[in-house]
Amino acid sequence: MIINPEVLFEFISRVFEKAGFSNEKAAIAAKVLLRADLRGIDSHGVARLSGYLRLIEAGRIDPSSEISIEHETPSTALVNANKGLGLVVAQEAMKIALEKAKIAGSGWVAVKNSSHFGIAAAHAELAVAEDMIGYALTNASPLVAPAGSVEAMLGTNPVCYAIPAGKYPPVIVDMSTTVASNGKLEIANRIGKQLPSGWVQTRDGAISTNPLELQNNGTLLPLGGDLERSSYKGYALGSMVDIFSGVLSGANFGPWVPPFVSFKDVQKEHVGEGIGHFFGVWRIDAFRPAEDFKNSMDAWIECFKNARTAPGVKQVLIPGEPELIYEADRKKIGIPLIKKVYSNLLQIQDKFDLNILPKVPEEVKIN
Amino acid sequence: MIINPEVLFEFISRVFEKAGFSNEKAAIAAKVLLRADLRGIDSHGVARLSGYLRLIEAGRIDPSSEISIEHETPSTALVNANKGLGLVVAQEAMKIALEKAKIAGSGWVAVKNSSHFGIAAAHAELAVAEDMIGYALTNASPLVAPAGSVEAMLGTNPVCYAIPAGKYPPVIVDMSTTVASNGKLEIANRIGKQLPSGWVQTRDGAISTNPLELQNNGTLLPLGGDLERSSYKGYALGSMVDIFSGVLSGANFGPWVPPFVSFKDVQKEHVGEGIGHFFGVWRIDAFRPAEDFKNSMDAWIECFKNARTAPGVKQVLIPGEPELIYEADRKKIGIPLIKKVYSNLLQIQDKFDLNILPKVPEEVKIN
Repeated sequence: MIINPEVLFEFISRVFEKAGFSNEKAAIAAKVLLRADLRGIDSHGVARLSGYLRLIEAGRIDPSSEISIEHETPSTALVNANKGLGLVVAQEAMKIALEKAKIAGSGWVAVKNSSHFGIAAAHAELAVAEDMIGYALTNASPLVAPAGSVEAMLGTNPVCYAIPAGKYPPVIVDMSTTVASNGKLEIANRIGKQLPSGWVQTRDGAISTNPLELQNNGTLLPLGGDLERSSYKGYALGSMVDIFSGVLSGANFGPWVPPFVSFKDVQKEHVGEGIGHFFGVWRIDAFRPAEDFKNSMDAWIECFKNARTAPGVKQVLIPGEPELIYEADRKKIGIPLIKKVYSNLLQIQDKFDLNILPKVPEEVKIN
Repeated sequence: MIINPEVLFEFISRVFEKAGFSNEKAAIAAKVLLRADLRGIDSHGVARLSGYLRLIEAGRIDPSSEISIEHETPSTALVNANKGLGLVVAQEAMKIALEKAKIAGSGWVAVKNSSHFGIAAAHAELAVAEDMIGYALTNASPLVAPAGSVEAMLGTNPVCYAIPAGKYPPVIVDMSTTVASNGKLEIANRIGKQLPSGWVQTRDGAISTNPLELQNNGTLLPLGGDLERSSYKGYALGSMVDIFSGVLSGANFGPWVPPFVSFKDVQKEHVGEGIGHFFGVWRIDAFRPAEDFKNSMDAWIECFKNARTAPGVKQVLIPGEPELIYEADRKKIGIPLIKKVYSNLLQIQDKFDLNILPKVPEEVKIN
């Protein structure tokens, strides 16, 4: 079924208000969560609303907390999220990075004591309108084995860059450092499909195509897939994300990162506070005039769009282009939700005594 | 045969002096080139000396040039390398980044109009002794096809991070954004081995295991290998390196990057100046006390070293650990060179009328 994004925004923000957030923060959280659904990252959007509510109920997220800056220099800051909601904390941290960059040329904010921040792109992209390049990292639930290991030591630890262009849309890369994200497994499971080989391994290191393998203590594989095809590189990238997000901020890192997924228990031991993020901004005109850069980006994009294709490929895509296509479609026709997710939203609606989403999907009005 | 690193250093620096560099610059270039041989990256060390000499003779590298800062802010600078030798330029650019970071908390330097800079680790690691994190990128000869393409549009475009630890050695990740680097193909070719599948494709996009496939207009594949295993992520990472190194600096980018390898012609068209690099430094105590960070890094390293291993794996390696093992060995026993590389060095020695390397390998004294 297809839901109007504005109705969904209204619903999510009212739910966050009912859960204890200020109107302003609830609106920010709803905006960030919806960015995932609009960009086609169905695993990270409204489908996770109940996950956030679960963490709020468990006291792991505090709706009334405010972030605080614990240390800063002209181009850097360490932020304590004080158990705030990652969706909101990350937007606030990016704003600090943007202010730093306006004066110092670049801005860097490490965040500790936070929680899941949704899609990284929703934060990094804040830089683009200011003619800056945005960067966002976060560590996450340990689900990924290092190359040569069968133990879940890292999250899918995304890396995100948002780069302005001229006449073309910004180039926004938002990728997990694994062959596939947990979200892709969730989707395969929902539609009842087996996985391609090389995405996950069993608890003993055997190849698996079972989308529920993680629930059997299997692990996701780092980008590269196997050692012969350089999975140690995906492992290294995921490690860098963990070190910047967790170690540099003073958050938990590695296997100590508190899980978002409900099938993993919270660790008893801690090596830091909450989960960690890392944000960066480079002002383009701190290097060369922004117009020159954007013209060169247009040339870059045109050149890569026109690269000679492999057999069976229509056109070479620019990094981040699939999400742009989703966004254009979904802004026009609405956000598709599977029945399981929609039923879950209706349960939340009942619980909070709201009346925004129609009970019968056929009644949903499409823009 | 095994060569004493000090003899090799003496030889390389004298060669660069004879080629027109000041004593100081020749010594820096020799040090950087040797870092590759010491760290086991045989493709990027003394084996490439003749390649640099070829570019100097062709007028593409100017031994007498000095770098200039074209624009700067408190935390950033744009450097024009003025056709200088990348090996030296990169060290100078990192020093600017370090100085910026001392005052602003972080330092960022984009470099244009440069040439091949050797291994990225030799530059990023300069940050470690100052309790800072170093970062280095460069674009390079177009040998890599975007995901879904068969056209060489990107270099192997390395990403490098150098991160201080406490009682353990620094974690230094220096990796191409492809399944395998061109250097690994060169080595397979030298020892007469076929490649694993998934490293390269033919000019028509078919799987190939031929280490000379690039000379037939084949291409290297981005990290991930194929679309089902997310090669679009390796493509995105390589693109980011190209955009930061080439587009942000005003150097050439994409297929216009002038090649280092001799089997590719120099492009007639230019979209910028020379090749580009990008360097960064974060001061650790711009976020949290360096001692706290280094203690946490030690905990991170111990935790990952002890991760449960997959069948057939003795111990999980820390990112960059293989290079550390090479370095410890080679500092003790010397640098092994294959006959083809050593003969080439003897030719260079004759050409420049030097008498540093013994003609007969058996005479080489080992430390």
